[in-house]
Amino acid sequence: MKWNALSQEPCSVARSVAVIGDRWTLMLLRDCFLGVRRFEDFERRLGISRSIVAERLKRLVEAGVLRREAYQDRPVRHEYRLTDKGLALHPVIMAVVHWGDQYYAGEAGPPLLHRHKACGCDFTPVMTCSECAAPIAARDVEVRPG
Amino acid sequence: MKWNALSQEPCSVARSVAVIGDRWTLMLLRDCFLGVRRFEDFERRLGISRSIVAERLKRLVEAGVLRREAYQDRPVRHEYRLTDKGLALHPVIMAVVHWGDQYYAGEAGPPLLHRHKACGCDFTPVMTCSECAAPIAARDVEVRPG
Repeated sequence: MKWNALSQEPCSVARSVAVIGDRWTLMLLRDCFLGVRRFEDFERRLGISRSIVAERLKRLVEAGVLRREAYQDRPVRHEYRLTDKGLALHPVIMAVVHWGDQYYAGEAGPPLLHRHKACGCDFTPVMTCSECAAPIAARDVEVRPG
Repeated sequence: MKWNALSQEPCSVARSVAVIGDRWTLMLLRDCFLGVRRFEDFERRLGISRSIVAERLKRLVEAGVLRREAYQDRPVRHEYRLTDKGLALHPVIMAVVHWGDQYYAGEAGPPLLHRHKACGCDFTPVMTCSECAAPIAARDVEVRPG
């Protein structure tokens, strides 16, 4: 279809990228999927200012992607955990990581390997069709208004 | 593995998000996959200033994600097309679109439907294991240094 037929589309993508379309946010989310939960750990890993970390975490909590939970009472300390909505971003983060591994890993290869626990193999993510399970590339897809 | 063992990892993800971790860049790339190629069309669709469109397109060309090609001689006019490196971002964009459809589409449903040409069905993207082809969720994955 022609792109100009799409001009009236609602903004579900625009809303998504308003939430995750930010460099530090994507780095924070990557770290969340690696098990990082505490403010100081995000801060140390990213090497950015407390105010940027705080602002990005706050936005992710407001968007329902992370939830803030007390893990200690005196003094109260919180950690940040992925909600179901946040966990649903796993394919996004894996796809970004895989693209980075393909084009930016350098000679040493991917910095991290991902093992699929069920089959025991190191894997790369493959995007497939929900209906026929075949791998999907851009040229395999036809788009039309919903 | 513990996240702190990852602190020495090279920055392939950091480099990726430096290229695509931007709201307007993700919107531009989404439009590229819908077949948009011309400056004026990006500008009109996104409704943002020429200077933002120009800067984002320039960065994508410099990063090797888009290539700028003349499609007309007098006057010379250029269009922007995805390179192989750009086409390799298809899973990223599809994953973002699908997440948006799940959480931001509203009652009207997804604004765009994606049909898999080979099987003829409307589909959603499913991330699977390259080795055993099973669907992969966050909890199925173990990460370790490469």
